[in-house]
Amino acid sequence: MKLDELFALLRRRGVLWPSAEIYGGAQGLYDYGPLGAALKRRLEDAWVAWFVGLSHDYHRIEPSELLPEAVVRASGHLENFTDPEVTCESCHSAFRAETVLEKARPEGVDGLSPAQIGALLGSLGVRCPNCGSTALSVPRPFNLMFGTELGVTGKERAYLQPETAQASYLSFARMWDVGRRALPLGIAVIGKAYRNEIAPRQILFRMRSFTQAELQIFFHPQRFPVPFDRVAAETVPVVRADRRGPEGSPPETVTAAALVGSGLPEFYVYHLVHMLRFLRDVLRYPAERIRFFEKSDAERAFYNKIQFDAEVRLESLGGFREVGAVHYRGDYDLTRHGQGSGRDLSVTPTGEASVLPHVLELTFGVDRNLWALADVHLARDGERTVWHLPPYLAPVPVGVFPLIPKAQATYALELADALAADGVAAQYDDAGTIGKRYARMDEAGVPFCVTVDGGTVGEGAERDTVTLRERDSRAQERLPRSALTGRMTPALRPPRPSRA
Amino acid sequence: MKLDELFALLRRRGVLWPSAEIYGGAQGLYDYGPLGAALKRRLEDAWVAWFVGLSHDYHRIEPSELLPEAVVRASGHLENFTDPEVTCESCHSAFRAETVLEKARPEGVDGLSPAQIGALLGSLGVRCPNCGSTALSVPRPFNLMFGTELGVTGKERAYLQPETAQASYLSFARMWDVGRRALPLGIAVIGKAYRNEIAPRQILFRMRSFTQAELQIFFHPQRFPVPFDRVAAETVPVVRADRRGPEGSPPETVTAAALVGSGLPEFYVYHLVHMLRFLRDVLRYPAERIRFFEKSDAERAFYNKIQFDAEVRLESLGGFREVGAVHYRGDYDLTRHGQGSGRDLSVTPTGEASVLPHVLELTFGVDRNLWALADVHLARDGERTVWHLPPYLAPVPVGVFPLIPKAQATYALELADALAADGVAAQYDDAGTIGKRYARMDEAGVPFCVTVDGGTVGEGAERDTVTLRERDSRAQERLPRSALTGRMTPALRPPRPSRA
Repeated sequence: MKLDELFALLRRRGVLWPSAEIYGGAQGLYDYGPLGAALKRRLEDAWVAWFVGLSHDYHRIEPSELLPEAVVRASGHLENFTDPEVTCESCHSAFRAETVLEKARPEGVDGLSPAQIGALLGSLGVRCPNCGSTALSVPRPFNLMFGTELGVTGKERAYLQPETAQASYLSFARMWDVGRRALPLGIAVIGKAYRNEIAPRQILFRMRSFTQAELQIFFHPQRFPVPFDRVAAETVPVVRADRRGPEGSPPETVTAAALVGSGLPEFYVYHLVHMLRFLRDVLRYPAERIRFFEKSDAERAFYNKIQFDAEVRLESLGGFREVGAVHYRGDYDLTRHGQGSGRDLSVTPTGEASVLPHVLELTFGVDRNLWALADVHLARDGERTVWHLPPYLAPVPVGVFPLIPKAQATYALELADALAADGVAAQYDDAGTIGKRYARMDEAGVPFCVTVDGGTVGEGAERDTVTLRERDSRAQERLPRSALTGRMTPALRPPRPSRA
Repeated sequence: MKLDELFALLRRRGVLWPSAEIYGGAQGLYDYGPLGAALKRRLEDAWVAWFVGLSHDYHRIEPSELLPEAVVRASGHLENFTDPEVTCESCHSAFRAETVLEKARPEGVDGLSPAQIGALLGSLGVRCPNCGSTALSVPRPFNLMFGTELGVTGKERAYLQPETAQASYLSFARMWDVGRRALPLGIAVIGKAYRNEIAPRQILFRMRSFTQAELQIFFHPQRFPVPFDRVAAETVPVVRADRRGPEGSPPETVTAAALVGSGLPEFYVYHLVHMLRFLRDVLRYPAERIRFFEKSDAERAFYNKIQFDAEVRLESLGGFREVGAVHYRGDYDLTRHGQGSGRDLSVTPTGEASVLPHVLELTFGVDRNLWALADVHLARDGERTVWHLPPYLAPVPVGVFPLIPKAQATYALELADALAADGVAAQYDDAGTIGKRYARMDEAGVPFCVTVDGGTVGEGAERDTVTLRERDSRAQERLPRSALTGRMTPALRPPRPSRA
């Protein structure tokens, strides 16, 4: 589906809508409705099960999202977290340089200086998207952080965090003290990040407030032991920085072992494979829609030693889009915060010398993946629209219907409550024909539907049996209600990585 | 425990700590560590199970927490969301009037005008807490919202939401369209709220960024049908606004029916009882530590027709403190946002006349209750510290130990993974004696511990059996590992209200 068509469907179904919609909406801000909020929570739970599940020494924390100025000064965000902004000297509109240039230069402006971008604007004859003038300014840096003041004096600046990672670095010393005092130590955060985008657009792909799920793994720079053998043969679709084909070329498919052979460290490739498995096996994006896009020296932030973006091809956005990344950040973060705070952040594992850990960051865009789950799994099949979400991600795991509401509503309501008490959230529905109800549930991604009928509430052999119907196969089976939870539950648990 | 002692324990155990701790901390901002983040998530899940579980027509949404200025202008927050602030004309320090007056006037300053507070400062001879001067200014209103700018122009003001409720009012029209178009309709939000407190203090009780769980129930002003019979006989501890005894007097204990007899509507008392049951039966605060404190006409916001604060007596804070409330807000919110947005927010239920719904708000402070769960349930028993959390709230449901790590670590690790895959998050621990491990788990509130020993991994009759130990009773039993999940799971599901 196209962007507008998909958004209209999601809006109509109450998955998401623009914030402050009755006031005309707030640019770059969205609200999740009942289905969206539940899907988001399950996606987060699946992320935790998978990534925090990688080690007994990885833990989720929930830090504040307001950062004092000293923190963003040390991290470099105060100085560098900027987008080149171009203003039109004729109509005074402001634009991201990348947006103004997007048709003339689809590869973007990463790595170019303001002067270089300014020269491009002139040489390509770029015009103001608003008034058509060619009088565009040389780009100036626009800081994307939202600032505010703490306290009454107006002198204590604070910022809404531009990424969740910083809070993990700030917590490293405390987490070291609280935990086993061993490396690697993983700190996971699922939280809001805020960016004052000059031109928010593409719904969930460039928002001003969005949710990140990030795992920062702090490890000894001389060794990060991983069971690499277990992933060595796995094939990974990659676009290498030094061997990119023309736009639209298929990625190379190489083994994890070959990636290590090309010079990447084992620990890095091991985690790249786990990101791949999460996207392919847990979120069930088709393998041919996934690629890992290596950023070149010029494109990646200077402190990233290695960066592959995880990208998924989305019909609604017309191509591959970033949904996550694996960043080897070295010791940049602990060094900077050590200097900024005046506290030495090196640690001393038992029986070893003091060391400043390096950081491997696995980052994941919750909203972008929620959108991707709609783009990839929502399918039109003639009149029928079915959201083929993996069952453990479905906002509502089971719908419960009385065949004839007047006769079986009480039983069905009680069954819905009993399933909920068993940990399987159930949605009751008695409106319209059974066919209409199945259609509503299919569109909402509900993997199971249970129908209560005359046999269920009668005195015969079918007493206390119900009909279970599966969304994807449309297969139906009659079974005792006591068998329902056991029948559905295995499909409703998100996969975990093997770590035995 | 005293405030400082309890905070020190929670900090040491990694439940929570001041944000940006390595930079000296950020006033009024806290980070939740692994235990705190997991406890918070479970507390939120228990709240959802209970309050969203009250009706099939109640739903959780997840809206943006940035509000455009037009929204807070309409809601009244731009004008009225203020605290009286007093400045010292001698040393230029700023204070909340309530803080400066707290010793001289412990009942607070709710309902007093700035001039009345100014007169009190003089007549009571109040001094500046910083320099001791009596030259304190007449209070001026200080707006508690955090403001920021959207976009590049600096002309689009936005505010971090001061309460989650507003987002529910903004979403009402969309939720009406998406849902069954019937009243009552409930919209629940768990989200961050932000207040630029002049004097943040008492750890989680006056934070600048905190989590609220709020349910807004939109209902027909002429009828809100509830099964009142089921709660009529329940006794509720109340302090009525017109019959308050001296500070420290015990609350009256009256039946729900008697409260209705005194003039409160049935729907209001019904929900007050459900708030009581949540605090007493789900969070397991002892009944004698709970009271519902009615706010007088002068104390409550003018748009609240009825307000009882739910209060819990906390040792660490020296008395009863507000942890939630039930507000009957009338049609104030939909009227204001109807005017502000220019959109008529009245609705037309099938076969009925158009009506502007009234709102009943159930509000609950997630952080305050997390603190209360520590204050109430953490007990010193000689050398032993045990956190008697209800099992379904415990951050970690089960600890898994090998009796002799060298011999049984592999089995125990594999068991921990298998339990996690079964939906029971398990923490592996092999450090120190079994007694030390039990002590660590008791302090962390872990309700179950499982020990793997020589019998478990041997070839004899005890093969694949383990020892299960319960935190509160310290009772131990030997059982097959295949029986573990079934044995623990019932205790790990949060209670739901009966709605059949």
